[in-house]
Amino acid sequence: MILVLRKDARMEDLERLRGRLLWMGMQVTPHIQQDGRLSLAVVGGAGGEVLLEEFETLPMVETVMPFTRPFKLAGREFVKERLVVEVEGVRIGGDTLAVVAGPCALESEEQIHASAEAVAKAGANIFRGGAYKPRTSPYSFQGLGKEGLRYMKAAARASGLATCSEIMDVEHIEVMCEYVDILQVGARNMQNFSLLKKLGEAPLPILLKRGLSATYQELLMAAEYILNGGNHRVILCERGIRTFETYSRNTLDIAAVPVLKELSHLPVVVDPSHGTGIRRMVAPMARAAVAAGADGIMVEVHPDPDRSYSDAEQTLSPGMFAELMETVRVIGPAVGMEIPTGRES
Amino acid sequence: MILVLRKDARMEDLERLRGRLLWMGMQVTPHIQQDGRLSLAVVGGAGGEVLLEEFETLPMVETVMPFTRPFKLAGREFVKERLVVEVEGVRIGGDTLAVVAGPCALESEEQIHASAEAVAKAGANIFRGGAYKPRTSPYSFQGLGKEGLRYMKAAARASGLATCSEIMDVEHIEVMCEYVDILQVGARNMQNFSLLKKLGEAPLPILLKRGLSATYQELLMAAEYILNGGNHRVILCERGIRTFETYSRNTLDIAAVPVLKELSHLPVVVDPSHGTGIRRMVAPMARAAVAAGADGIMVEVHPDPDRSYSDAEQTLSPGMFAELMETVRVIGPAVGMEIPTGRES
Amino acid sequence: MILVLRKDARMEDLERLRGRLLWMGMQVTPHIQQDGRLSLAVVGGAGGEVLLEEFETLPMVETVMPFTRPFKLAGREFVKERLVVEVEGVRIGGDTLAVVAGPCALESEEQIHASAEAVAKAGANIFRGGAYKPRTSPYSFQGLGKEGLRYMKAAARASGLATCSEIMDVEHIEVMCEYVDILQVGARNMQNFSLLKKLGEAPLPILLKRGLSATYQELLMAAEYILNGGNHRVILCERGIRTFETYSRNTLDIAAVPVLKELSHLPVVVDPSHGTGIRRMVAPMARAAVAAGADGIMVEVHPDPDRSYSDAEQTLSPGMFAELMETVRVIGPAVGMEIPTGRES
Amino acid sequence: MILVLRKDARMEDLERLRGRLLWMGMQVTPHIQQDGRLSLAVVGGAGGEVLLEEFETLPMVETVMPFTRPFKLAGREFVKERLVVEVEGVRIGGDTLAVVAGPCALESEEQIHASAEAVAKAGANIFRGGAYKPRTSPYSFQGLGKEGLRYMKAAARASGLATCSEIMDVEHIEVMCEYVDILQVGARNMQNFSLLKKLGEAPLPILLKRGLSATYQELLMAAEYILNGGNHRVILCERGIRTFETYSRNTLDIAAVPVLKELSHLPVVVDPSHGTGIRRMVAPMARAAVAAGADGIMVEVHPDPDRSYSDAEQTLSPGMFAELMETVRVIGPAVGMEIPTGRES
Repeated sequence: MILVLRKDARMEDLERLRGRLLWMGMQVTPHIQQDGRLSLAVVGGAGGEVLLEEFETLPMVETVMPFTRPFKLAGREFVKERLVVEVEGVRIGGDTLAVVAGPCALESEEQIHASAEAVAKAGANIFRGGAYKPRTSPYSFQGLGKEGLRYMKAAARASGLATCSEIMDVEHIEVMCEYVDILQVGARNMQNFSLLKKLGEAPLPILLKRGLSATYQELLMAAEYILNGGNHRVILCERGIRTFETYSRNTLDIAAVPVLKELSHLPVVVDPSHGTGIRRMVAPMARAAVAAGADGIMVEVHPDPDRSYSDAEQTLSPGMFAELMETVRVIGPAVGMEIPTGRES
Repeated sequence: MILVLRKDARMEDLERLRGRLLWMGMQVTPHIQQDGRLSLAVVGGAGGEVLLEEFETLPMVETVMPFTRPFKLAGREFVKERLVVEVEGVRIGGDTLAVVAGPCALESEEQIHASAEAVAKAGANIFRGGAYKPRTSPYSFQGLGKEGLRYMKAAARASGLATCSEIMDVEHIEVMCEYVDILQVGARNMQNFSLLKKLGEAPLPILLKRGLSATYQELLMAAEYILNGGNHRVILCERGIRTFETYSRNTLDIAAVPVLKELSHLPVVVDPSHGTGIRRMVAPMARAAVAAGADGIMVEVHPDPDRSYSDAEQTLSPGMFAELMETVRVIGPAVGMEIPTGRES
Repeated sequence: MILVLRKDARMEDLERLRGRLLWMGMQVTPHIQQDGRLSLAVVGGAGGEVLLEEFETLPMVETVMPFTRPFKLAGREFVKERLVVEVEGVRIGGDTLAVVAGPCALESEEQIHASAEAVAKAGANIFRGGAYKPRTSPYSFQGLGKEGLRYMKAAARASGLATCSEIMDVEHIEVMCEYVDILQVGARNMQNFSLLKKLGEAPLPILLKRGLSATYQELLMAAEYILNGGNHRVILCERGIRTFETYSRNTLDIAAVPVLKELSHLPVVVDPSHGTGIRRMVAPMARAAVAAGADGIMVEVHPDPDRSYSDAEQTLSPGMFAELMETVRVIGPAVGMEIPTGRES
Repeated sequence: MILVLRKDARMEDLERLRGRLLWMGMQVTPHIQQDGRLSLAVVGGAGGEVLLEEFETLPMVETVMPFTRPFKLAGREFVKERLVVEVEGVRIGGDTLAVVAGPCALESEEQIHASAEAVAKAGANIFRGGAYKPRTSPYSFQGLGKEGLRYMKAAARASGLATCSEIMDVEHIEVMCEYVDILQVGARNMQNFSLLKKLGEAPLPILLKRGLSATYQELLMAAEYILNGGNHRVILCERGIRTFETYSRNTLDIAAVPVLKELSHLPVVVDPSHGTGIRRMVAPMARAAVAAGADGIMVEVHPDPDRSYSDAEQTLSPGMFAELMETVRVIGPAVGMEIPTGRES
């Protein structure tokens, strides 16, 4: 349930209320509403039924509302205004497009620096790259690990970029927090509930990718695990779902953008690289994502795409990426979005 | 195979060649290439193997090329330049967006006229409306039939619009040709091969909707049935596919636009109304379609959407449609597309 | 709604009631219940709301019940006992397994006779074969037509078999009725509503195949079109649905058997040949279908499978089919099903 | 590649060969073939190309064969005979059906003992129950944890059963190994590669459930992670895939049984409870699985199904389970399978 407190509620009342709720085994998440009122999301432990009436009579409580959706914290009932996640000066979820770009895998110091420079120049504001790779085959390149992360941070900072990289293992949380600004959860781990619970306690925002066959509701319930753990900075990412069509790697569900933005206050980013798996389809689908109202795009760019260790066939060259950004700049105003300009590093 | 004739081939040579091919049981489709050369698509009857070598030595033949794709006439091997379908002054497939709009079902003379006026004013150039409705239930409204078509044509012409309506039954071909400019084949009939064969002989362009679980290749093979019958004016339409997601009626596969435009020379139109089934999703998805490079959009608009006999929940009001068109006008230049302006009737 | 008449209702009362209902624009389907009472399914025309109360007070009416499911005649509310379709001495839907077998396409007189003999010997009771073929490509073999049907009937009768063949075009209804005992509607035509309406008036039972992406409810609504037309002998057929898995041609949904038998009184047959598209998978999946309670199986068998004009890779040899039937005979008793024994012709 | 050694190869040759391969950065898995020859699966590190010719000339090597499938150890190229996993006297993969049964969640000591007794009596040989539950919602019951495992082991042993329970978190490996005989990996963790790698070093057999949208190949590649880690006892489990059909929770892909048994030597078990999500469908689908050749079935049984903490709607009562086992006993001989008889504890 949601408790909206009276404007004249005093801090000590609040503390007493909170104490009582915790004592009852509930979890309490506070939020300051746009009208300045304080509201509390109160979620019971498993099986715990909450009697709304009990709380309505409390002196400091103005209104009590039940949650009507299973995604309580990820839905729009509790937090109504859109979430803006801010890292290293980049705001995701506001009126500037988040442009996350970089190679699929971090491969070498040189490749990492060249990539960061190139994407920054074309207008990216967040640098992406995988240090630990979730590969379908145990015999494929598994990533550079910590070394890659170190190069990544250095290259990103040199180009004025924030960083984003995938976390696959709870054991890596500590090292990743040292080098990375946004932790990405991959599609295959979207319902790895052990990992989600741990990330609920992580100090970094989480970019949560939709699973290959996850419904919108399941994606929001996965976000709920993180939010419920206390980490309120979650970014949703549509990256293609699995359908009967085999021409492309996945079917990029652009409709996820308006749907998720209606169901949730969390920012929504689209990954047209994994969403199509085909280089020539990345630009039109990135444009489509922006036109549909996405808060950001996530694009694989490599200085020499055909030599990428992984995902070569869906990776853009710096030139293709710069061209894409030019057309995105035309579309921005149609959806009230500012598109970042490039910067030389 | 494709035979490209020498520039100095004479008409009588051509006739002789064509006669010989027909005598061999083959079907011959001529096409004048952009360089002025005449080329012939030659497709054998079922089971007929063609020996390329036989034809290479003919005096008027310059080159012989085998088809490498199963969709011979619908693919880009034979016709390389994009097809522009022209009806009643509207060009579909060129550099102006085709905007097909109107109610799901033709309901009454008044509703039809009000719809046509409203969509013309906002910028539509083709009026759509169903006279024969493919309903999942035999107990649902099955359409006004011929009467509806008559009203439709009158209303469209009064507003300067071409018309498009669905054909469900070969018996209706004649009456529809009297009133309609573009015949639509619905998703559920995409592989009704008997209907497709008949439409191969129809004098009107065909707007062919992708089946709910049809691959790109199957859509192109369905187009092939029509093209092979001699009707070369086929427009492809993406209208959403069936996936595991149940929040929306279908999953609109925006990637179909760049993929089909790469595989085929036929124009590609997107229907965000059926593609989502949700009114609030229609505008963002229409924008996405245009940004991805669609040649047209197809939108359900009704003067009083909530009173629509069918598809009410996905139908726009005239006001919503006009707003959508405004934003589409901003996106047009990003993809080199002119967006038609509205006209008072 | 369903009207159950009083036991003492007189024929003239019934006629008067029926007349009144028809006059009100309703369709009336009578059914004699197991307890001897006459019940009437009354379905309104499109949009027609029926007021139950009006009918409750009629003297000959005992009870009035609304339909709660959209598939009124195909559901179990009106007809509660399982339907048994009888053709040429074969009963489909009772306690003997219907075994429909034969080649994908009718190819030649010799092939047809050899197939019929072989399948009869192994225990089939219905002979199948396509005379008009729905081919994805217009360049593939399109079938022998009427000639094939003539051979088929002769061969089937010589071996004591009933016949089943696909109808693709309303124009073929007459000729097919001359030679065929069961008309099959293919998966791609499951929602060809024009065809379904015509088959509602056909004098033969219809074997209706589930569409590639049709839900159970859509399959039953397609059956409803036929039942509502007055043809009450419909057999449902599960033949595989389209999923993300590409190893096999389709995913055979064996669960359709218990689900459809719960939702409907119509018999349910399973086609493991199209359902898998892989020869080695046909026998295990046919066994699975019988074990799940199917009323019949439909198997492609060819005297020389590798030379089949179509579907070679999923077609059994007579020997493989005979072996399959042996194992099915063991399973029969687990589900209370008799398995037909073979006969020499 | 696979190296088959000469019959007269000496132990010291083998050691030298193995040393050399390890020195080259390869992983070596030995296997004694049915003909008594020793063969070695040699898989390179990521990116490592192996030159077959180099090895052909070695004195102790008889033949060198490349792997042609990406699932090297999970496929049938290396190990040709079917794997039999043996735990606590139960053989999975041989000619006796593995019958894994028990409640979805371990709820209380009483419920656990009642369940184990009931399933043992009806013929189960392995007891299942979840101590750590992967719940879509963080607000649902998350399991009894270690306490549940302790009760589970005691109850199973009292009834002569082996045990199987899901592992969600690498941190639980140790405690689970103390109480459980088979570790289950749930569908949502099928591509949790960090977990799979750890389980490659676990001392227990792994029952690996197919992901909701995992292809056969992806399932085998997930198994490959475990096998490649050195744990060769993997049991595959089909538990339903996600399709467009929403009537049932999942679409149970029975064809996975013959397909996986053809592609791999690993045993294949089917879970009709999760595969359908509907109590009345469990028995027919369990019968179908056995008829299709499954090595085992996994069924949710609860002493009082309607009071189950989770999955109530798909859980059988002891009586329903006993009836199911009776019919399975009839089917067994059709596929050469012995069905275990029940025992009083």
